[in-house]
Order: sequence, then structure tokens, then C-alpha cells
Amino acid sequence: MRWSQTFTPTLRDDPAEADAPSHRLLLRAGYVRQLTAGHYSLLPLAVRVRSKIIQIVREEMARIGAQEMLLPTMHPAEIWQRSGRWELMGQEMFRLKDRRGADLALGMTHEEIFATIAQELSSYKQLPQQWYQFQTKFRDEPRPKSGLLRVREFTMKDAYSFDIDQAGLDASFEAYHGAYVRIFERLGIPAIPVDASSGTMGGSGSTEFMCPAEIGEDLVVHSPACGYAANIQKATSRLPKPDDGPGEPAPEPFDTPGVRTIEDLATGYDASGDRQIKTLVYLLEGRLTLVLLRGDHPLNEQKLVDATGATSIRAAAPEEIQDALGALPGSLGAVGVTGHPVIADEALRGRRGMFTGANTDDVHLRGVDVDRDIPVGTWADLREVAAGEPCPRCGEPLRIERAIEVGHIFKLGDRYARALGAEVLDPDGKRVPLVMGSYGIGVERAMAAIVEAHHDDKGIVWPVAVAPFQVAVVIAQSDDAETAAAAEEIYAGLGAAGIEVIIDDRAERAGVKFRDVELTGIPFRITVGRRGLAEGMVEVTTRATGETVKVPPSEVVAHVETLLS
Amino acid sequence: MRWSQTFTPTLRDDPAEADAPSHRLLLRAGYVRQLTAGHYSLLPLAVRVRSKIIQIVREEMARIGAQEMLLPTMHPAEIWQRSGRWELMGQEMFRLKDRRGADLALGMTHEEIFATIAQELSSYKQLPQQWYQFQTKFRDEPRPKSGLLRVREFTMKDAYSFDIDQAGLDASFEAYHGAYVRIFERLGIPAIPVDASSGTMGGSGSTEFMCPAEIGEDLVVHSPACGYAANIQKATSRLPKPDDGPGEPAPEPFDTPGVRTIEDLATGYDASGDRQIKTLVYLLEGRLTLVLLRGDHPLNEQKLVDATGATSIRAAAPEEIQDALGALPGSLGAVGVTGHPVIADEALRGRRGMFTGANTDDVHLRGVDVDRDIPVGTWADLREVAAGEPCPRCGEPLRIERAIEVGHIFKLGDRYARALGAEVLDPDGKRVPLVMGSYGIGVERAMAAIVEAHHDDKGIVWPVAVAPFQVAVVIAQSDDAETAAAAEEIYAGLGAAGIEVIIDDRAERAGVKFRDVELTGIPFRITVGRRGLAEGMVEVTTRATGETVKVPPSEVVAHVETLLS
Repeated sequence: MRWSQTFTPTLRDDPAEADAPSHRLLLRAGYVRQLTAGHYSLLPLAVRVRSKIIQIVREEMARIGAQEMLLPTMHPAEIWQRSGRWELMGQEMFRLKDRRGADLALGMTHEEIFATIAQELSSYKQLPQQWYQFQTKFRDEPRPKSGLLRVREFTMKDAYSFDIDQAGLDASFEAYHGAYVRIFERLGIPAIPVDASSGTMGGSGSTEFMCPAEIGEDLVVHSPACGYAANIQKATSRLPKPDDGPGEPAPEPFDTPGVRTIEDLATGYDASGDRQIKTLVYLLEGRLTLVLLRGDHPLNEQKLVDATGATSIRAAAPEEIQDALGALPGSLGAVGVTGHPVIADEALRGRRGMFTGANTDDVHLRGVDVDRDIPVGTWADLREVAAGEPCPRCGEPLRIERAIEVGHIFKLGDRYARALGAEVLDPDGKRVPLVMGSYGIGVERAMAAIVEAHHDDKGIVWPVAVAPFQVAVVIAQSDDAETAAAAEEIYAGLGAAGIEVIIDDRAERAGVKFRDVELTGIPFRITVGRRGLAEGMVEVTTRATGETVKVPPSEVVAHVETLLS
Repeated sequence: MRWSQTFTPTLRDDPAEADAPSHRLLLRAGYVRQLTAGHYSLLPLAVRVRSKIIQIVREEMARIGAQEMLLPTMHPAEIWQRSGRWELMGQEMFRLKDRRGADLALGMTHEEIFATIAQELSSYKQLPQQWYQFQTKFRDEPRPKSGLLRVREFTMKDAYSFDIDQAGLDASFEAYHGAYVRIFERLGIPAIPVDASSGTMGGSGSTEFMCPAEIGEDLVVHSPACGYAANIQKATSRLPKPDDGPGEPAPEPFDTPGVRTIEDLATGYDASGDRQIKTLVYLLEGRLTLVLLRGDHPLNEQKLVDATGATSIRAAAPEEIQDALGALPGSLGAVGVTGHPVIADEALRGRRGMFTGANTDDVHLRGVDVDRDIPVGTWADLREVAAGEPCPRCGEPLRIERAIEVGHIFKLGDRYARALGAEVLDPDGKRVPLVMGSYGIGVERAMAAIVEAHHDDKGIVWPVAVAPFQVAVVIAQSDDAETAAAAEEIYAGLGAAGIEVIIDDRAERAGVKFRDVELTGIPFRITVGRRGLAEGMVEVTTRATGETVKVPPSEVVAHVETLLS
């Protein structure tokens, strides 16, 4: 390939709109252009990188026996209604009507659609089946941002496993887990598998693969000591149990004029946050529910969703709270409350001598014994852990880091198969629903994550396995016929050896060419210049290290082959 | 690959809903399944064929220097509005709104979107540029049918050329023309390039590549004698000019009670169809227009659209006609009409002594001299040719055949570049709009066209270049360990030699396996059976010919390599 003939519009300056390093560099290096918020055009170099990512994923899918398919992007509403996700997906799903007025969805994911194909499976003897595709997904993100990291349209490798039972699913899940570890390793993404919430997917468990990055929108909680790692939505910590003493015989109200916050009560009434009960009020699927946490513990809303299975959730408005409890936020509590479900965080279990609101404005209670005084209907892990808390596994301090989700694998169970009627005969001749898993990697997000993990102040530093070209041959003096001829010969030799090479044959200064090779992140640069040739040498520069060595032209191919292997 | 582990749900019987052979066979052989009308799931064998088609197209695109990109499928309405096609595309374009209420389109084609990328080109020195992608296209077909042949969602290879002038476009167009000829040859599609209408694309000319097939929805007019070929929307013929004699001094009205049709006038009044003027009334972009043809000539509506550049067209209703002309269809004519444009077919030019309606019910005129009596504003080729008419080039009788459009290439001119502001500096330093061409192949339609051209009563007969597997090894007696071991050894040997091979290791009768190999269209079958092995032989059967030869197991790889080369 000749640089003069490719369309790689590099920019001299950082684009103003770009926040994430990958966004900035992929724009500057001429890989992508935004068509409109959340929709990107991939230019030739990006398509080359994308093809390599796809090929690596495809090879690892083949290795675990997965078969590639391609299912439609546009789906009749009816299929999504059968699983209940037509409503559940809310505004995030793009919807439209055809010329006859029929309701259609653009696929955000394909559990339902693959389950319709699985309807043709008839016997446990055909199992397991592993099916996957590379297909465009559409998601109406409220805030598309960070270039390829959060978009409305992207390519996903989505895979689905079909097993006869949970043990089969566990084995399939393990196979994908292994494949994902290998994929991210080959892509050069330092991904950490973490326990995660399954969100709208449902099912019995899921693992996210997280690439640490400052720009990441997810928080990973991990213990360097033992390797424990979980998404913030799932992470726990081992809190020391406070010694509450014997407690009080009964809750006792006391006046707290003007007290509105945990902090107010703590400073004015000797009630430290860890001795308070925080009472939050939510509407879970329209039902007003009291959510209790220790005063100094924040709620993680996804944990509340996961604990209750609620598909719609919102904080109650002050007037709704006043109507239900007779007081405004600041003096709320669950003591003596009836008629509203109460869900409490595990950290409150067995606590005594606690403070909480009395459901009368400007009045609180002291001496509350949680187990005795509060009608807790559900105990659950609801609180969001904080950095420095003890690891639930090893007890060492937890760390919290920002990360990008680069893959997510789910044990789904039989929810979709039941909804879509995907059943097979088991060994006893009984019809049973298939047990499914699903497994996703966003292809263009992976590209961006690689850049987040591999760049410096000069530009992108692609790992060789995904680089658009392995080698760039730079003609230092394009106007010098002898130099150009020598460079062309090296270019031809590398191409003949099956090395992916581009020659920068533009009538530009050497400095411009060097800058573009560095910016675009091509792993090896061969500089062919007049002075070097006079010494019988060309220069081979490694992008990652900046190291340059001199090599005779006749040895370039062998030298590059060594570098690549 | 092992047949026992692939998902290839072949069917014993023809599916009732399938009309086209490709539809029937791709369903029966387990290649595709319909999700909903116009949307198909591609199963593993189909994905393999599709990949091969894509690879062939990609190689030929690379050969003419085209660069692969990938542009979004979802577009802001604003871009389509700038070219005027937001309205023009009508109901065929899927439209939707996002969560903020912004209007969006799903791409039917990408001229506008590639032109936005071309805005970054700055100089004629960067030209020509050839850009392409494989991207999903959506079209809200009024009647999806024939399996993969007419769908609402499909993969298109769409390419776009950018040149400084018409001469550049002509050269680019020729390059794609050549690439398309090679692509269809490699795919095994007997495509004929024909002159075609450009439809809503606009521009100065287009060529369609047509694959003859009984199920085809297009009509190709061609002359076997000289090679002339055109789409029915574009085809002409060389009609003999009737000798009208000197004509009459003036038109003369005469009563024609009850005459409503060309036929009525011909039989009752000695006015053969070729001496009548047929007057049709259309609304072209809302303007009532008289369209004249010879009485025995049918109108081709696309020709009317192309001749007038109208973006909306419909036949006028009887009441609209009565209002405008004072008579109902059956007695219409253009003699003395003012205030309405008149467009006439070339076959009427210079005709004398003609019959036509008098715009009074039950009255006609005779002795009409077209040039003298009718205020024709536009002369154009409007009539649809009929089989047997003389070829416009060689004069031999034309044939008309049904065909499938498998490719379409367009000289677009500067329409899109002007609308989107894609300009470069020419050698004189003047800003000029880019001159564009566009070039499309439907990938899954190509797959179906291959099947239309290559099948027999037993199933599909894939050309080797696109077959999902080159060879199937069939274990005739799966329960015989020695036979199975011999087959496995052959299978491993073929795989090691880089041959794409599947082994049918299912616990099925040999007959079932043979039938599936035939149905799925795998080019070569190697049958490993007890009896053959006893003689030291296996059988190699060629799908296309049915021919079987016996080969010693040790020579199978060499034999297959010969067959494949």
C-alpha cells in the first residue's frame, strides 16, 4: 500500500471535542470521523484494525467450537414482547414502524432472536450448541461520548450457548471465559475479569472483562493482595461489626429541630453516621418501598435492582413520601411502618442503639434495635463499597479503579428459551427448555480500549497483532531518485515476504512522515535516506521503544521477521 | 468441521412458502431461516458462502485500488434533506426518531454519507479516490419475496468514486465495470451488463449486471446477434417507419359512440393501432401532463420518469382528466390542447393521417398530422419494446428474458458533491465539486443468484470458489470402527493440505448423508465404505456431473487437489 494513495487524513492539532485519549488519537491519526453524535465512520486504517480484531475473535470462537451465523438487525416487536423486554428496554431501544404500521425494533442484543433459531433444536444429543455473529447493534444512549467508547451504533461479537442443564451452562461459560482471556491477551487489552450485575439480561451470574483506563465509566473494586475483583455494582467488603452494647429497652423519640441530614444529626446529637439508619424511599415498579442503609453507607442502585428484580425504579418525590409516611426526608424512619415493604442492607442486621427518623418532622428516635423494632422484609447487600475497606476474601484494603467494560458474559438460564419456546427432549424423553448463556464483545470499543492501553504523547502504539500495517517504509528524500528506488526495493521485498507494509512515498518532508508514522502507531518504521545509504544502511525504528538500529538493506526482511516473531 | 457438530437443519420436503428455486433450496439445505418477511437469518453454511463472496469482491476492489471503509447505517435526516432525497425516497426508506425526537434514517444507500467524508479532500492531486464498504442496507420493500432476492435488510458492497471531472468518472466507471465482470465470473454468476435507468440516483448513465433467471423480476432486452443488451426501462428498438402518404389538410371530427379503447376504434373505424395516437394523462410532480404514444405501444413509466426528471408520478384520476380536458378516457387527445405540457414518444414524430380522441366524449379526430396539429413540448423515448422487434444496433429480432439484477453501477456526476459541499481545488486553483460514481452489489442476493444459476433436482451445486466446504467425507458405515478410522484419516489429510473439508460422522444411513451432501451442494464427496476399503479404494464423486471415480486412500489428497485446480 502506498501512503500517497490511501485516505488517512491526519490532523496537526488535537480536535477540541475529544475527551478520551482514544477518541483524540483515532480522530487525529485519521482513523475515524463522527457522522453525528454516537455514529462514527471508520476510515481505511480503522477498517484494517477492525478486521484484525474480528479475525482474532473468530479464531478463538472457532477454537471453542462456536459456529458463526448472521441474524437480522431489525426485529418484529412481537419477539421482544414475548420475553417481556419490549417494555423493559425502554428508551434505550430504537423503535420504528414499517410502511404497514408494524412495530419494529433495532437489535440491542440478540437473545430472543437466537432463541427463535434454537426452536429447531430437538434433542439433548445436539447439545451443546455455540452460536455467534458479528452484527451491528443499536442503542439509543442518553449521552454518547468518548469517541468509540460510548456510541449508538457498533459491531458486536455476540455469542449464545445452548445447553441441556445448568452444569452444561457452567461448562459453556467456562469455555467462553477462557476464550475471552485469550482474546484480550492477543488484542493487547489488559482485561480483568470481575463479578458483575446481570442488569436487564437476568440470569444467575455474569462476569465483566474490564480494561483499566482513566476515562473508563465503570468502577472496578479489587484486592491486589488476593486477586478479588468485582464491578462496583457487585463488590462487597468485610466490615468490622461495631459493638453496640446491650442497647435500650425501647426506641425513644427526641426533638431534632432543623436536622435534615446524617451530618446534622451526627454533629448535634452525638450520633455518628455508623450509628444511624438512613431511610431512602423508592418506587419499585410503582410500589413505594423503604430502603435502609447505615447512615455512612451510600446506596448502589443497581444492587437494589438486582436484589428486588424490579424492572422500573425511581426515587420517590417529597410529596409522595409525605403522603405515605407523614414526614419529609430528614426525619424518615421505618420503625413501626406498616403497609410498605422494607428492604435493609446487611450491615444493619443485628444492630442496636441506633438513631433514625421518627416520621414526624424534626423528631428522631434513639435506642432503635433493628431486628426488634423494624419490620424488615428483605435483607440484601445494597451499599456501595469504598476504597480502603477490607477485601471480603483476604481482608486487605480494597482499591477502586476506573475501567472500560470490554466484554461481558452471562449465565442466562432458561428465561429466553421458555419465553420463545425453545425446548428439546432430555434423555428421559421429556421436553425441557434450553439453558442459555450469552457472551459479548464490542469490536470498535475493543479498538478504542487498545488505544487507551497503548499510546504515548506522540500517538498510538498498536500491538503488532492488530496494527493496520506492521511496517512503514519512509523515503526520507522523495525527490532523490536513488533513495526512492532503494526504498521501493525494500518495500517490494517486505511485501513479497508476506509482511504488511506501507510505503510513505508522499512529497513531504521526512519530519512530516515520521510524525504520521508515529501518530498512526505503525509498529516498525524503516527509514531510507541518502546519508544512511551512503553507509550502506537503513534505519529500523521500533515505535514502542523508540529504539533505532541500522541494518543493511539486504538484511531488512530477515531483521523485520525477527522483530515480528 | 464435523457434520455432527454443525447446525445445518436440512428439511426432507420443500417448504410450502418458497417460490424461487434459491429460496426453496437455501431453506431446505439449512442455509437460511426467515425471521419475518424480508429479514433472514444466515445459518453457518450460509455465513461461510457469504464470507467467500465478500472475499472475492474485496480482492477485486483492492485490484482497482479501492479502499475499504465502514460508515454508519443510521443517519441524521438533515444529510438526506440536503440532497433532496429525504422526501424522494418516500416509503422505501425506514425512518425513526431517537429519544430526543431527532429524525433519523436507516441507510438504503450511502452517496450522501460518503460525500460527507469526501469533504476532507482538498485537491485534485488526491484524486481519484475509490472508497467502499460492506454494510447493511435497509429498504422497506412493499412486497418482500423470493427469499434472499427481495428483502428489507441485506449486506451491500457499495463503492463510490471521486474524480475531478467527467473524464475521470468515465475512467473510474470503466474500472468498476471491469471489476464487476471479473467478480461475477469468479462467483459463477452469468451476468450480462445492460444499459439501465438511473432511477432515484440521478446522473448521466448506469449499467446493470443481470443474471438470467426465470424468477427474475427484471426484463432484459437483448440481441443475440450483436450483443446489444438493455434493461426494459432503457431498451429501444429500430421500428420501420410506416408510410402515411400525404395526409389530410386538417383534422376532421367524427362520431364514435361507445368507443373506449384502441381496439374499439381499430375494429369499428378502420384505424389500426399503429395509426392511432394514445393519450395518457399523468400528474408529474403534481402537474397534469399529456403523454402520447402510438396506439399499439405500451408506456414504460420509468422512461417517463427519466425523460422528465419527475420525482413523483401518478396516473390522473378520471375526474381530474374530465376537469382538465372536458372528456373521459376513451375520447382524449392533444389536438388544440393548451395549458398542459405534452410529451410524445419518438415513434409519433412526423406521423400523418392519425386518429385520436377529440376531447369530447364519443367523438374522435382523423387526419391528424402530429407535427402540425399537436403542441408537443418534449419528444422522448417512452414506449416499452416488445420481443421480436428489430435490435436498434443490428436490426435482428430482440429477445426479452427475465433476470435478477446482481449489480448496478452509476455515473452520478456532481449532484451529491454539490449538495454536501464536497469540493476540491482544481489545477487552476478553483474550487469545483467532486464528480462521483457509485457501484453496488448485494451480497446475499448474489448468493441467491448463484443458486438460481447452479442447482439441479437434487439441490444446490455450488461453484468451488464459493462453496461452504470444498469436500465432504462421508463415512458410509458409522458403526464400523475401521471404516470410521479410515475416513478420519482421509479427513485429517485433506485438512492438513489446506482443503476445506467437512466429515459426515453422524450416526445416519449412508443414503441420508448422500442426500444432505447433494442438497447442500458441496462440490466433491469422498465416500469411505467397507466394500470399497476391502478393494483398497474410496469413491470421489463430483457434485456437478455426478461422476464417481475410485481412488486409493493414499491418493485422495492429490486427486482432490487436481480436481480443485
